[in-house]
Amino acid sequence: MDHKTYVQNTQNLTDKLLDKYIPSDQSEPALLHEAMRYSVMAGGKRLRPVLAKATYDYCGGDEASAVSSIHKAMAALEMVHTYSLIHDDLPCMDDDDLRRGIPTCHKKFGVAVATLAGDALHVIAFQLMAETGSSQVVLELAQAVGTSGMLGGQMADIEAEGKVVSAEEVRNIHIKKTGALIRGAVRIGALLAETPGDTLKRLTHYGEMIGLAFQIIDDILDIEGDQKLLGKSPGSDSKNRKATYPGVIGVEAARKEANRLIDEALSVFNSEDDSALQYLARYIGQREH
Amino acid sequence: MDHKTYVQNTQNLTDKLLDKYIPSDQSEPALLHEAMRYSVMAGGKRLRPVLAKATYDYCGGDEASAVSSIHKAMAALEMVHTYSLIHDDLPCMDDDDLRRGIPTCHKKFGVAVATLAGDALHVIAFQLMAETGSSQVVLELAQAVGTSGMLGGQMADIEAEGKVVSAEEVRNIHIKKTGALIRGAVRIGALLAETPGDTLKRLTHYGEMIGLAFQIIDDILDIEGDQKLLGKSPGSDSKNRKATYPGVIGVEAARKEANRLIDEALSVFNSEDDSALQYLARYIGQREH
Repeated sequence: MDHKTYVQNTQNLTDKLLDKYIPSDQSEPALLHEAMRYSVMAGGKRLRPVLAKATYDYCGGDEASAVSSIHKAMAALEMVHTYSLIHDDLPCMDDDDLRRGIPTCHKKFGVAVATLAGDALHVIAFQLMAETGSSQVVLELAQAVGTSGMLGGQMADIEAEGKVVSAEEVRNIHIKKTGALIRGAVRIGALLAETPGDTLKRLTHYGEMIGLAFQIIDDILDIEGDQKLLGKSPGSDSKNRKATYPGVIGVEAARKEANRLIDEALSVFNSEDDSALQYLARYIGQREH
Repeated sequence: MDHKTYVQNTQNLTDKLLDKYIPSDQSEPALLHEAMRYSVMAGGKRLRPVLAKATYDYCGGDEASAVSSIHKAMAALEMVHTYSLIHDDLPCMDDDDLRRGIPTCHKKFGVAVATLAGDALHVIAFQLMAETGSSQVVLELAQAVGTSGMLGGQMADIEAEGKVVSAEEVRNIHIKKTGALIRGAVRIGALLAETPGDTLKRLTHYGEMIGLAFQIIDDILDIEGDQKLLGKSPGSDSKNRKATYPGVIGVEAARKEANRLIDEALSVFNSEDDSALQYLARYIGQREH
């Protein structure tokens, strides 16, 4: 199977897992389950679950136990990501109307239901991680999402709005806000495959590099992008006076930095490696939405 | 030590644990940590951690390993409870100005920071539960908080606002919204003490009964209570047209039902038992704030 097919299959698998693990909108509380499904099933690249699975497979993770370990972690990672988007889109935060090409959760269901839908995805994510039986991956998720990770980045992002920030400060916001969960996805895949420490260390570096590159390219696309491909309004960062890489160092230098990070991510692999992880790093470097 | 002193000591221990496990407001993101501390350290009865510890001790939980197990669970339970209060108080939900006698988190820090502070307490709670090394208590917390528990109750509560509801519907809301986490606190204390199944079953019933009684009395106090003792505006339930027990069956019948539930909670103990759990059940039955 070529890498492109592998990634598509894994995206499809993720969709099936999400459908399996989010309670039915026929069961109570039906409206809450409907709101959770609405945001999660709206699509997206499923990057974090795909990275987790590709890492698991790269590390020779056991195929027989995948259903009770990496599959649950994949669904959990996408749920946490979606919860963060739902809360980020709220009127008190970025106040966005569009996400993944459709109205944001609060536009469709109201702010109260959207707040609870985010909270509920957050809980199920931890539940699924715990169901793998590994307390270590629960801790890994908590670290990625907590105040030294994603939530710390969201907070710093809010505090930086409208202020003059340095490239170093933007870098720190991006590493936490976007990078921590991407790094966490890679590490969780490696931990569930019981990877030895030296490989875990290499892959952690890979995760950190692609995580930062991903957000820099997101910033560039926000300036240059096409609404139809992006699924959200381009220019929303500058509307919200967000701290961005191209805003601080310019588009050209930002693109160069992203390329450098992708190269560094690729450098952790051995010369004989030809894995989906390398394909994904190149994909992130070249993506247009 | 008499039961009253035991409860006071355990409340004080809870305060120390919360101070220990919430990151310092001197560390970044400082404002987020400050908001988390503001809401958590505002006081409160610490009922859930006290119940968890009293259950752990009733079940003969190991004193030596308490620091790495029940102590972490105690802090986690209070953090989850506080997160639910912060999100419940938001303008999109109950829109309350006062909590525990001081301005609500969003009144003090704004809606964005309050939303993130709730999210962050939610994460640390799961982190601490995972640090006990028991995936089982992580699952127990997730079940108590998820859409078949607390969040399901919050959702049903919103949907019932302004509608005519039956006593059965109010009961179902209360069992989920308040009861599930109180039940979970008792079960987590028992599980960490490695209690055998029959005792766990008895204590689960105790937790269910006091959880429902607690919310019924909360409803009564909301009608009859004194703002100074309650720490929040009395009458806010009727202002928000909430589904309440006294609203449906009257104050007198509600009081009688609470007494019946407390008696049933007490019935799970053996005749020779004289534990803090029994004291707490009686305390819940008689509390005035």
